[in-house]
Amino acid sequence: MSRGAGRADAEPARPSFGAVEIITAKRDRHELSRDQIDWVVGAHARGEVADEQMAALAMAILLNGMDAAETAHWTQAMIDSGDTLDFGDVGRPLVDKHSTGGVGDKITLPLAPLVAACGAAVPQLSGRGLGHTGGTLDKLEAIPGWRASLSTEEIRAQLADVGAVVCATTPTLAPADKRLYALRDVTGTVESVPLIASSIMSKKLAEGTGGLVLDVKVGSGAFMKTLDRAGELADAMTAIGAAHGLPTTALLTDMSRPLGRCVGNGLEVGESVEVLHGGGPADVVALTVALASEMLALAGLPDADPAATLASGAAYEVWERMIAAQGGDPAAPLPVARHVETVTADRSGVFSGADALAVGTAAWRLGAGRARKEDPVQAAAGVRLLAEPGAEVRAGTPLLELHTDTPERLPEAHRALAGHALLVTADPPAARDLVLDVRRAG
Amino acid sequence: MSRGAGRADAEPARPSFGAVEIITAKRDRHELSRDQIDWVVGAHARGEVADEQMAALAMAILLNGMDAAETAHWTQAMIDSGDTLDFGDVGRPLVDKHSTGGVGDKITLPLAPLVAACGAAVPQLSGRGLGHTGGTLDKLEAIPGWRASLSTEEIRAQLADVGAVVCATTPTLAPADKRLYALRDVTGTVESVPLIASSIMSKKLAEGTGGLVLDVKVGSGAFMKTLDRAGELADAMTAIGAAHGLPTTALLTDMSRPLGRCVGNGLEVGESVEVLHGGGPADVVALTVALASEMLALAGLPDADPAATLASGAAYEVWERMIAAQGGDPAAPLPVARHVETVTADRSGVFSGADALAVGTAAWRLGAGRARKEDPVQAAAGVRLLAEPGAEVRAGTPLLELHTDTPERLPEAHRALAGHALLVTADPPAARDLVLDVRRAG
Repeated sequence: MSRGAGRADAEPARPSFGAVEIITAKRDRHELSRDQIDWVVGAHARGEVADEQMAALAMAILLNGMDAAETAHWTQAMIDSGDTLDFGDVGRPLVDKHSTGGVGDKITLPLAPLVAACGAAVPQLSGRGLGHTGGTLDKLEAIPGWRASLSTEEIRAQLADVGAVVCATTPTLAPADKRLYALRDVTGTVESVPLIASSIMSKKLAEGTGGLVLDVKVGSGAFMKTLDRAGELADAMTAIGAAHGLPTTALLTDMSRPLGRCVGNGLEVGESVEVLHGGGPADVVALTVALASEMLALAGLPDADPAATLASGAAYEVWERMIAAQGGDPAAPLPVARHVETVTADRSGVFSGADALAVGTAAWRLGAGRARKEDPVQAAAGVRLLAEPGAEVRAGTPLLELHTDTPERLPEAHRALAGHALLVTADPPAARDLVLDVRRAG
Repeated sequence: MSRGAGRADAEPARPSFGAVEIITAKRDRHELSRDQIDWVVGAHARGEVADEQMAALAMAILLNGMDAAETAHWTQAMIDSGDTLDFGDVGRPLVDKHSTGGVGDKITLPLAPLVAACGAAVPQLSGRGLGHTGGTLDKLEAIPGWRASLSTEEIRAQLADVGAVVCATTPTLAPADKRLYALRDVTGTVESVPLIASSIMSKKLAEGTGGLVLDVKVGSGAFMKTLDRAGELADAMTAIGAAHGLPTTALLTDMSRPLGRCVGNGLEVGESVEVLHGGGPADVVALTVALASEMLALAGLPDADPAATLASGAAYEVWERMIAAQGGDPAAPLPVARHVETVTADRSGVFSGADALAVGTAAWRLGAGRARKEDPVQAAAGVRLLAEPGAEVRAGTPLLELHTDTPERLPEAHRALAGHALLVTADPPAARDLVLDVRRAG
């Protein structure tokens, strides 16, 4: 008989039998049972299911889907692969936020101290960014002395004392997710809503937050390019939250243009400090306050007034203590790029504000982001917008600055902008709706 | 920005980029180009594309398909991964046959010497069987002294002298297929028609045959359970043959019941020798002659008379020379199992002939087949049918014999028969149509 024939009903047990059975079930559009999911996720994390088997399963999931129950079980299995944290004893209600990531998205930096200043505790455990600009940890590492790695007890003490922690996630939280994510990254299986949703939610659930606000970005600079796809992801994540008893709210927010005027690690820290001093770009302030309001509502503090707290300087005081608690000097000057080049308008018209993907790609080329997780990022590299979107400009008006320590990369950054963005247009840009939708489970 | 975002248009070259691009193209239902297929198949064979990437691609191919052009290119890329043979100088027209495998399918054993006796040369290079019963090599290895491994020059000399060679394929023929098949076997990606078809055809094309007859089995004991699926596979294979200029004919033949009365390595050799002596079961004789006629037509010998050649004993003379040329003793007694148990009818009625899957599974349990390619097979294990299908029996009439060297496996064999086959029925079995359809390209 040909190789493989009759396997399903006739083959004796062998090491990969469980994996092949589960792969073929999903391949043939069957729902996976809780036991199947528990076993395959755990066995992959333990190295008992081979990467090639998990890759085939991930592709079958991407193409054939998982329903809400399967996705909730998948999430639980990833949580069960490692430790869970419990900061319920810090004396404040716990609430966290996750952003799916966008160009110029420094919101965590003003948001965490703001929510802490209003009385909640924010345990923000982050991974490293892999994309156009660095992640939140890369941004904070632009501050001299600041360190991302804390022990669980340091996190607990800082939550009780300061109320806000932004630090590196520990390797023991959802290790199954780490292994699976690395695999998805090289096998074309990133773009699966159930796998994205369970990856994000497993880490937030393992971290032990009491409430979660999701900022799901939509637009050219976001992973989800359309409102439909972003809504699908938001619904999948809030459903997982509901299935696990975690109050979860998702805001769908615009990422067709960069957030604020600065894109790049140190540049974004500087802009965040402006916001914490009561200034800064209006879009960054508005989104920070909108997300803080949702977080405070989930934390049982609906009467807190984040806008007033931001304006009062109270959030900046928490920022100073949060940075200092992790070894950083909040008063130290931020790094400055060795080369700054100004891009000017080549004609008269209206400044478009620049497409998010174009600006993000330019910042990446300048050294602000990384292609592989081993790559370093430049603390000072990035893009600063000089004109307000919608401003009338003429030929020669400065539009934006390119910052880098490696000027040989400047031509690539110019190409990224030229390829994607018409910086000066005849018509003013459309008015921007920052928060496009709000989703809650059930 | 979130991990992986913007990759397709913004990421610098990295080692896996080509693989991810190809995986996502097939995932998103695009046709793969000839260059993409050439690269990914070759790079996987060279170890430059990881198994997990090829597994994800195989699952995407299984679920989203490949068209005829992609399948032809895939086949060529597998051929190009290794050597090709050329036996065009042996002085006879070359023609080969491939069976998708079935229970009791010993047809190659009488067929190769028969076609050689009619004037063609048959270069049958085989892999090892992995399934209910051993492959052709396992069957011939039941003959004392016979060896499967020949050098290319030994094959050439035997083709010129004897006209028929059945031997092990060389590791340098389509090595990409070997690596991919091992991967598909553990990743739930065996059951893809384009991948099955290209796997079979790449080896036959690399072997350098001048014509090819395919025996595509249909029914419970076959890989393809329905005529539709078997027809799909036959059409895919004949299309590849046409694309590569290889005259190819496919016969779709019945595998709802075992072929002949013997299932098991040595038992099938014995039955084949009966056929070569002009006797043997009618179905084995009929299929052998039908396949020989097609092969001889493709070899440009349409006037040969295989039925008469079989009856004359000329094919048996070639068999003796073919076995002796590879060190075997055609006159030596075949191995006999240490334990033989007879299964009798438990009631009066009509002998059903037994379901192919049931008999195949029983033979496997008795030791005739293997679960992993490292496993040994028993030369003498298997099943012999004692009654003719349709014969009237009463309680106690012997129906079949179970042969094994390991009697502890007998209960498993009984269970396989009890679970699948009603051996004695009220009604006579339906008349059997052995050749169900014939497919030729174009």
